[in-house]
Amino acid sequence: MSESTVVVFGEQPPVRLDRLAGRAQVVVCDEKTLPDALPSADVLLVWDFTSDAVRDAWPGDGPRPRWVHTASAGVDRLLSPELTASDTVLTNARGVFEQPIAEYVAGLVIAMGKDFFGSWELQRQRRWQHRETMRLAGSRAAVIGAGPIGRAIGTTLSALGIKVDLVGRTARPGVRGNDELPELLAQADWVISVAPLTEDTRGMFDRTAFARMKSTARFINVGRGPLVIEADLKAALLGRHIAGAALDVFENEPLSPDDPLWDVPGLFVSPHMSGDTVGWRDHLAEQFQDNYDRWSAGEPLLNIVDKRLGYVPVD
Amino acid sequence: MSESTVVVFGEQPPVRLDRLAGRAQVVVCDEKTLPDALPSADVLLVWDFTSDAVRDAWPGDGPRPRWVHTASAGVDRLLSPELTASDTVLTNARGVFEQPIAEYVAGLVIAMGKDFFGSWELQRQRRWQHRETMRLAGSRAAVIGAGPIGRAIGTTLSALGIKVDLVGRTARPGVRGNDELPELLAQADWVISVAPLTEDTRGMFDRTAFARMKSTARFINVGRGPLVIEADLKAALLGRHIAGAALDVFENEPLSPDDPLWDVPGLFVSPHMSGDTVGWRDHLAEQFQDNYDRWSAGEPLLNIVDKRLGYVPVD
Repeated sequence: MSESTVVVFGEQPPVRLDRLAGRAQVVVCDEKTLPDALPSADVLLVWDFTSDAVRDAWPGDGPRPRWVHTASAGVDRLLSPELTASDTVLTNARGVFEQPIAEYVAGLVIAMGKDFFGSWELQRQRRWQHRETMRLAGSRAAVIGAGPIGRAIGTTLSALGIKVDLVGRTARPGVRGNDELPELLAQADWVISVAPLTEDTRGMFDRTAFARMKSTARFINVGRGPLVIEADLKAALLGRHIAGAALDVFENEPLSPDDPLWDVPGLFVSPHMSGDTVGWRDHLAEQFQDNYDRWSAGEPLLNIVDKRLGYVPVD
Repeated sequence: MSESTVVVFGEQPPVRLDRLAGRAQVVVCDEKTLPDALPSADVLLVWDFTSDAVRDAWPGDGPRPRWVHTASAGVDRLLSPELTASDTVLTNARGVFEQPIAEYVAGLVIAMGKDFFGSWELQRQRRWQHRETMRLAGSRAAVIGAGPIGRAIGTTLSALGIKVDLVGRTARPGVRGNDELPELLAQADWVISVAPLTEDTRGMFDRTAFARMKSTARFINVGRGPLVIEADLKAALLGRHIAGAALDVFENEPLSPDDPLWDVPGLFVSPHMSGDTVGWRDHLAEQFQDNYDRWSAGEPLLNIVDKRLGYVPVD
């Protein structure tokens, strides 16, 4: 077997690809060196998935790698029309983030339902103020995004006794179609956004969507920032059209210190970390190397993204 | 059927016992009027379960009610040796608090594992600071207290993929005996205290117990305050012998504004509200009236407390 070249985009934190030793030439590059490195690449590993540099590298000068793997679930940052139209196979990190994100969302649901942040503030003020809070069992969640992460969220919330409607692009067994969304938004106590970012979903949580929700509803976004019109969410919270929200992802990341979202009442902000549990980087590296084993053996790759849909289709 | 007298201890918030209209004379009393009211009582409903007045009312002058029902899960506040020795039947609010408390504990576990309170503080400082947090699936919890609430907690944590050891007074199927506690404390990522407060359990979470726990362990108390030696917990947190704690119950409630617990680093304080979801008071009143129906029909009461054990025994 001739040695192939694996170009790794992103240097920090360093990726450990010990299993490729002696089997591949690994070239690590950054935004500046990526264009020069790509023509020699058989495989591109997108280790830094927060940059637009890869998106901009298609078509580019010279040959492109036949396989691109991204260490992320979402592929919106790198999917250019040219990459979509090309023969390059794209795979993603399906399997790594499902359970952590489901735990995170379940925690947000309970934290909001039980007013943990209110208790935290009262603690700082040394005030003992008993409140009645929400019973979660029997409440209702609409999970928008019926891929593996959405399904894991649905399973976890169901285990808490929450009635879950999973909403996907089209209706199929266990999944409600997007056409039912207006009605489902009006019924939900919890609206959870975990859809892939595509031209169809960009900005889907706007003023109209928030106006459909109950005034007691809470909104959670762990998908991608641009799914949400942030100004509309802010207005919905300030106008008390909905009762609360939690955002882990944003239109612009990192959120700048002067962003108005930081102190919107009823909004919990976290820095795009819902899926990132201790060891996640190692897990991502192992996953890539497992797929590399398949690739070098001529076996079919796992987690192949349907580039026109923008995600790995599941039944 | 002759009209019987139901004495209700506790005025605020008012209890609604509509179903007793025309069937019982309902007399509401407070700490001052309880002694005079008790001799005429067939039934005592302990609506305010935060007072020691009922405990002090045995043996007392004149006849005592044959049945006492408390609108709480724990009976420690009212179980005097004299009441224990008497023929009076004691029932409790088993069934009302299980699910809410299980949800609350699951939320605390996730909030601590995912560092929600750290994110909340960073949000106030407008700081974007990504961290890797804990994957809960596969972590290990010791739930001390194998009654209905402990079991509900165990079920809910298990649904999150957490390995749960339920610890009771004696070993039985599905329950580890108290003699195994030292070993279980040493293995647990989550130590959850929900034992009934008895002479055996008072102060069980002391310096020795905290010293057995892992430095990464978190401790949660939703049982009764005196299960914990608060000074020892404070020392364990300050000395980083454990990684965090959440207390919903305290030696003295309400916690006074100058209590040192309010600002112990790594400690989350909430005001004894883990089981109190919207509608809980109505639920408690319904439960008492259901049992009253049984009592007036001469049927066996539900939720009879074993007064020597201090709780309703379950298999």
